[in-house]
Amino acid sequence: MMRSGTLYGIGVGPGDPELLTLKAVRLLRAAPVLAYFVAKGKKGNAFSIVEPHLPPAQRQLPLVYPVTTETLPPPLDYETVIGDFYDEAAALLRIELDAGRDVAVICEGDPFFYGSYMYLHDRLAAHHPSEVVPGVCSMLGGAAVLGAPLVYRNQSLSVLSGVLPEPELRRKLADADAAVIMKLGRNFEKVRRVLVELGLDRRARYVERATMAAQRIVPIDEVEPMRSPYFSLLVVPGVAWRH
Amino acid sequence: MMRSGTLYGIGVGPGDPELLTLKAVRLLRAAPVLAYFVAKGKKGNAFSIVEPHLPPAQRQLPLVYPVTTETLPPPLDYETVIGDFYDEAAALLRIELDAGRDVAVICEGDPFFYGSYMYLHDRLAAHHPSEVVPGVCSMLGGAAVLGAPLVYRNQSLSVLSGVLPEPELRRKLADADAAVIMKLGRNFEKVRRVLVELGLDRRARYVERATMAAQRIVPIDEVEPMRSPYFSLLVVPGVAWRH
Repeated sequence: MMRSGTLYGIGVGPGDPELLTLKAVRLLRAAPVLAYFVAKGKKGNAFSIVEPHLPPAQRQLPLVYPVTTETLPPPLDYETVIGDFYDEAAALLRIELDAGRDVAVICEGDPFFYGSYMYLHDRLAAHHPSEVVPGVCSMLGGAAVLGAPLVYRNQSLSVLSGVLPEPELRRKLADADAAVIMKLGRNFEKVRRVLVELGLDRRARYVERATMAAQRIVPIDEVEPMRSPYFSLLVVPGVAWRH
Repeated sequence: MMRSGTLYGIGVGPGDPELLTLKAVRLLRAAPVLAYFVAKGKKGNAFSIVEPHLPPAQRQLPLVYPVTTETLPPPLDYETVIGDFYDEAAALLRIELDAGRDVAVICEGDPFFYGSYMYLHDRLAAHHPSEVVPGVCSMLGGAAVLGAPLVYRNQSLSVLSGVLPEPELRRKLADADAAVIMKLGRNFEKVRRVLVELGLDRRARYVERATMAAQRIVPIDEVEPMRSPYFSLLVVPGVAWRH
């Protein structure tokens, strides 16, 4: 039986193409097959970041999402549709791996920090050699461009999703020394309300598309909630440790 | 008056020299002055990572810690000693910046994620132009080498310090979907006890010096607590989202 190729999960960083690591570049140049998740009709952020480094003869496998929203009309069910899609994507990659070809899956930010690579890893890593190349995640890109030190000494950091129900969000934020809230989009107004209630709105900082060309830093009381994109985040930095 | 140099806080990643970003390498090559925190008599991890990229004529400013432990004999007081040290380090850098020279401060992992660069940033960034280059933090390096996807979809991630008092650690861990516990060292046994109590010990994974040459992955019931180094961490991955 042929020796399996290796599955690489490669973090390509938060958006700025210069935030690729040396290791990511080396592996991308060497990979015979490149796979990436992408919305229909789009080029994809991750692909745009790595494009200048790709070798001419590389096989490219765009994995095109069948849906663009998590709310589907019945009888469709998002969990089923997306689960089937990940199964099919994994099957495609399995063919390459079984043929002995390494496959590099690129991922914005870091592959194991909310990355869709995880769904392929969970389906393939038990049967094929795999290696994950960590990347700069969006949260760290956001803190950097905001000039906002995140956590000092023994402070705790809570990374929260904006989709959390309001009471849970309030409880978790009240208990955090420092926090990052991701997946804002339509959840922005709810999150802002909680920050105001907790008196954290003055400390909180907001950025859209951190480190990307289209980056926007907006004071949080000026954010138009309905226009907050998916790639936005709020940072509540830890209180500076001063001595 | 002369135009100020720029203060760069540069994350150099968790240990593997290939996890430097392209941007970090470019700025390190161009910086007239390189500053880094280091223990007395040591070369320093951050310095070792960047050394192959440094230009010949660069001025190097090692900032040597006056103490190696946070417990000092009276009348010495850690907070005062270390605060004075950061003041002096900032004063040294201010001379370079005022003379119009850019200063690159290197930092293991990410500068704003528990990095000592923050203490210089807080002292200098209000008066000098500054830019932070985010890096791959140790937590992401750890998850990658453990092959442990950290957080799925809308899960929350809690980053906790092993020095937290046991009840607080228990409460925070019980409330977390996924967690990373840093600063273990002498706190390891306490942390392990809490994980066992919460039934999280089977899910938890332990690694020392992730991505470094001396990396060690040890089952958590085999870790010798008194030998757990500072650069070790525990990962409690989120429960896999399967569909």
